Amino acid sequence: MDAMLPMNALLNPGSVAVVGASDDPTRIGGRPIEAMRRLGFGGRIFPVNPHRNEVQGLPAYASIAALPKTPHAAIVAVPALQALDAVKALAERGVRAAIVFSAGFAETGAPGSALQASLATAASRSGMRLLGPNALGCVNFHSGFVGSFLSTDVTANVRPGNVGIASQSGAYGGHLLAAAADAGVGISSIFMTGNEADLTLADVVHLMVEDPDTTVIALYAEGIQDGPGLLAALQAARRARKPVVMLKVGRSALGSAAALSHTASIVGDDAVCDAVLAEAGVVRASTTEALLDIVRLATRGIFPERNTLGMVTVSGGAGVIVSDAAQALRLPMPELPAHAQHKLLELLPICSPRNPVDTTGQFINDPSIIEPFVDTMLDEGGYRTLLGFFTYAGTAPNVWRGLLERMARVRARHPDRLYVLILRGSRATLDAFEEQGFTVFEDLNRAVAAIAAMGHIGRSFAADAQPGAPIPALAPIALPSGPLTEAQAKQLLAAAGIASVPERACADAESAVRAAREFGFPVVLKILSPDILHKSEAGGVLLGVSDESAVHSGFGTLFQRARNAAPRARLDGVLVARQIMGGVECIMGIQRDPVFGPIAMFGLGGVFVEILNDVVLHRCPFGVDVAERMIRSIRGAPLLLGARGRPVTDIAALARMLSKLSAFAIAAGPRLQSLDLNPVFAMPEGEGALAADAAIVADEAP
Amino acid sequence: MDAMLPMNALLNPGSVAVVGASDDPTRIGGRPIEAMRRLGFGGRIFPVNPHRNEVQGLPAYASIAALPKTPHAAIVAVPALQALDAVKALAERGVRAAIVFSAGFAETGAPGSALQASLATAASRSGMRLLGPNALGCVNFHSGFVGSFLSTDVTANVRPGNVGIASQSGAYGGHLLAAAADAGVGISSIFMTGNEADLTLADVVHLMVEDPDTTVIALYAEGIQDGPGLLAALQAARRARKPVVMLKVGRSALGSAAALSHTASIVGDDAVCDAVLAEAGVVRASTTEALLDIVRLATRGIFPERNTLGMVTVSGGAGVIVSDAAQALRLPMPELPAHAQHKLLELLPICSPRNPVDTTGQFINDPSIIEPFVDTMLDEGGYRTLLGFFTYAGTAPNVWRGLLERMARVRARHPDRLYVLILRGSRATLDAFEEQGFTVFEDLNRAVAAIAAMGHIGRSFAADAQPGAPIPALAPIALPSGPLTEAQAKQLLAAAGIASVPERACADAESAVRAAREFGFPVVLKILSPDILHKSEAGGVLLGVSDESAVHSGFGTLFQRARNAAPRARLDGVLVARQIMGGVECIMGIQRDPVFGPIAMFGLGGVFVEILNDVVLHRCPFGVDVAERMIRSIRGAPLLLGARGRPVTDIAALARMLSKLSAFAIAAGPRLQSLDLNPVFAMPEGEGALAADAAIVADEAP
Repeated sequence: MDAMLPMNALLNPGSVAVVGASDDPTRIGGRPIEAMRRLGFGGRIFPVNPHRNEVQGLPAYASIAALPKTPHAAIVAVPALQALDAVKALAERGVRAAIVFSAGFAETGAPGSALQASLATAASRSGMRLLGPNALGCVNFHSGFVGSFLSTDVTANVRPGNVGIASQSGAYGGHLLAAAADAGVGISSIFMTGNEADLTLADVVHLMVEDPDTTVIALYAEGIQDGPGLLAALQAARRARKPVVMLKVGRSALGSAAALSHTASIVGDDAVCDAVLAEAGVVRASTTEALLDIVRLATRGIFPERNTLGMVTVSGGAGVIVSDAAQALRLPMPELPAHAQHKLLELLPICSPRNPVDTTGQFINDPSIIEPFVDTMLDEGGYRTLLGFFTYAGTAPNVWRGLLERMARVRARHPDRLYVLILRGSRATLDAFEEQGFTVFEDLNRAVAAIAAMGHIGRSFAADAQPGAPIPALAPIALPSGPLTEAQAKQLLAAAGIASVPERACADAESAVRAAREFGFPVVLKILSPDILHKSEAGGVLLGVSDESAVHSGFGTLFQRARNAAPRARLDGVLVARQIMGGVECIMGIQRDPVFGPIAMFGLGGVFVEILNDVVLHRCPFGVDVAERMIRSIRGAPLLLGARGRPVTDIAALARMLSKLSAFAIAAGPRLQSLDLNPVFAMPEGEGALAADAAIVADEAP
Repeated sequence: MDAMLPMNALLNPGSVAVVGASDDPTRIGGRPIEAMRRLGFGGRIFPVNPHRNEVQGLPAYASIAALPKTPHAAIVAVPALQALDAVKALAERGVRAAIVFSAGFAETGAPGSALQASLATAASRSGMRLLGPNALGCVNFHSGFVGSFLSTDVTANVRPGNVGIASQSGAYGGHLLAAAADAGVGISSIFMTGNEADLTLADVVHLMVEDPDTTVIALYAEGIQDGPGLLAALQAARRARKPVVMLKVGRSALGSAAALSHTASIVGDDAVCDAVLAEAGVVRASTTEALLDIVRLATRGIFPERNTLGMVTVSGGAGVIVSDAAQALRLPMPELPAHAQHKLLELLPICSPRNPVDTTGQFINDPSIIEPFVDTMLDEGGYRTLLGFFTYAGTAPNVWRGLLERMARVRARHPDRLYVLILRGSRATLDAFEEQGFTVFEDLNRAVAAIAAMGHIGRSFAADAQPGAPIPALAPIALPSGPLTEAQAKQLLAAAGIASVPERACADAESAVRAAREFGFPVVLKILSPDILHKSEAGGVLLGVSDESAVHSGFGTLFQRARNAAPRARLDGVLVARQIMGGVECIMGIQRDPVFGPIAMFGLGGVFVEILNDVVLHRCPFGVDVAERMIRSIRGAPLLLGARGRPVTDIAALARMLSKLSAFAIAAGPRLQSLDLNPVFAMPEGEGALAADAAIVADEAP
């Protein structure tokens, strides 16, 4: 963790000043004091209030200067202008961290932004860290430190546990906390970062990585400003084996508009964000419920890399629902081995022993079969996760007590498996199961989704431990100033080992005819001009030019068309290229994302990219292993893999090209704005991949 | 309703016999008696038990013959063989309906199936209707009639209400009921149909359509055997304005296998089932929770045909989540008109007034703004549904009482709108809101999904009231016996008004050359044989035949290839056709579904159908309106609609062809097994649509 992060000052300060302390425990300046005393905070609290000697029974001080000692942390609960003075005074006294509740900063427009900048400067002078302004703040449910004005009604219901919540939104953070409390999710701490003048979501993640009370991290993000910073934090969490589950909103155009209207954040493109988060091993939840389901199950700390699901059920219908859900999420449910099926049939002839194992109501009528059934499934089916559908068995004490006792013995024999039960019953009954290591869900589909997520986490942890394929080594590439011609672009790419279709730039019709003769007919002719980027639109491409006289006349045609389309364009001649037959058209590209830097894209050409937007993205750079996974992940991949009698294409060559392209994007430096290879021909296996067109857009040299 | 359906005998019989009655209220033969007395059933109960004079304090009878009067209904809770005798005796006495709990029938294999057939025959002789065998039976929570051995723990928690549950699975039906009770969904009755020897899910739907206590129907189906019967029942429900929400399982291959292993049902193809249920206006839920969410909201009886969502929120983040979810579900969230936005900004300058309307915490701090805010949204935004995000406001009595009072006044002024709140609080608090007409959800995404479903129901009801486009009128079509040639198929289709590419059957090379000259070059040549259905695979198609000599030699080539591929095939010559340029390749077809009859399919040709399975299905027949909706619904539709500078195609002609094809499927009768038009060329607007190939497979004439 960054040594500068004020971990103790925010999680368990020895002392805290409350600037703007109120005697009324329902007011913003009163709530933290009331809550800290209620939650048993062990540090000293210094209320600061020029008008009172005492606040909520504690001695109050007239000013920050008047405090008897320097507190570790401070809460600032005064209006914006006074907040600036308070932050200056706190920084001068050497306070390590301040939590600023006050609104009226960047969220209100330009003057507020200026005020916020002053706030940040004042704090940074002494190295004091800031949470906020306009922040609902933080609570540590283990130490009882409350640097937040969250409603008492919310904090009172929270059970201390191991899930840390970090939210950019205060109101939604509070909602998440209340929902977590209702769902029985134990919380270590919550941080709501507000305007992020200093500490960001990424800093909070770092802090939680270091906090031994936090084993699972739940994030709610509306906009990410510092991509590399967040990624570093997420990678630190993965190294520490602390899963991160994220509710990232703003997927739709509508949603993004709403996000912009209420925060001062830049919302990165959602597809890019998806790709980058997946790369960092983050599980992205699409609803609040899903987020809580996943973090609740994750607190068991069991993340099977090769997750398989065995289900024992009292209802065949429930088995069908789970089979459907598991298939949709690609969670394997292998059949029990035949000999194990025979064993179960001997125990209970009416059972359906494949998996899901349907015991019908017999499981409840004859509890003695529970242990041999589940033991057999775990020993011989080897399932990493066991899902038991017992539904309303939890409502009858004589039934559930026996069930719990027997299942607990099974679990003691197989402590490395994940156990999930569908059970209805009183809170106390369900808690009894939870305490014995069984995670109880009400709904089958939600249970399956959470189980599948544990496998994703396991695979992400395992992938992190394995070295990936090497990134192609490329020396820095100097992009020329001004617009690049296609020939220039291809030269740079060729130097980086990215092959194009054989072609030659020809300044006159005669040399074009010679080049065509050398390549063999048919050929493609393309106008050569640094000023015409979109050649097809300008009529600057002729396909299937089939003999010498056609090349000759084609040369003239292209010049004529180019002059009509772009009268001032510089025309350098015509590019003659071999016409590729029998390849599959793909598209590769690079786009610089303002938040995450250069992003590589791969897709199939034609209707796939135009109509279906069937592309895959990845942050640059990456090795051939990642590139090949990307290529195989698109919906149209069967076209490359020999579907319906088509030839299998040279996937390995495509992957090498894509990986090299990602290295090119880094070597070319930040001036590279975009790069398009369209089309790239994936040739039949063993024949490689060839870019037929290349366009590079670079910023002017500084 | 079918006059034969024993509605009163199953919902509220005047008297009921319990054959196999037990004195032990926890045993299967004891549970119904205990439950009926607990739920206040008003009819007489006659326990039948040869070994006791009294059962649970009621006089018992030694046999069915010994009963003092003929009961309306009977419960049969004895082993399978005795059950057959009991059913015979009950039928002889003139009982109207029997509920058979006993297992050991069709679910166990062939001998059980025979026994089940005897059971059905015995009942039908007297017109007695059967629920079961192997059925968990039925409960009416209004009359207190319990024809079920559902556990007391489950029935005790159910609140009487207006949702009817019909389930093919007993165990899952019980689970649904328990889940409904926990979710506060009021239930009118539940039916679990077991082996369906007589009464099916469709019969139960008819019964619920007639039952005034049921306004919303929840279905759980594992396999549908009588497609037309179920459709008739669903259509009756729609006419009665009773929405049907269905959890149909068995989507995955895995799920279907599980369904087959535990019921004796035929699972229809899931995509066909999806299409047919959508046509009948059924809302298909994918999870149990979603099913209960939708039926709970549906009990409000408000189904806006043009649903729009207005949201008022204390959290901008919640607004973003809802915007995302609404967009994904195509639920419109129009902006408030500008003057209304100004009005809100005057009331509360810090609000974000577009929609979602973000009031920040101010809504709770200053309750007086609630009424003008929400009134303005409903009056000037015209939203049919109002969603309020108030989160933990429900935990503070001083806050929620004021909120409820003010919201209730708003609702009184706009009683035709749907009101959904996200609120956390005690069960009693949430019930107070529910009683005033506000449906409370915990989770935003689930609320939005349920709201969107109300619009689907509204549109389905409205569509039902409007006459669709006429079905093309076709006289019965006599399919020839034996395999059809392409030419025969096209002749039949042409007679039905389905146009093909101009072509001619030619017996020799000379006539082929003449035909080609007439059509103009290039042409397509195809081998003509009743024995070669898949011409391309047999090398029997030549494209782009560009001059007379090529036609001449092509004729010989096709004959040679056909002889190699299928030495015994009869060869009738070659089909010469104009080669179509500039159209978009589509595919149309008919497939006979064993449950729902002929199903029409439309898709784009090439990779769309081969790789992406991008097709749409609909039961035959249908008019051009339905056909056009189908065409526009596929993912690749932009290709037909002029995407990226492509020409717009003749959608109207495609729709006419598809509608005619659906009429053809009916006119050709049940011998038609499948019909493929592949490809069909969608020509540019105004130039029609042409089938280039046609294959018909018919059963032999009987």
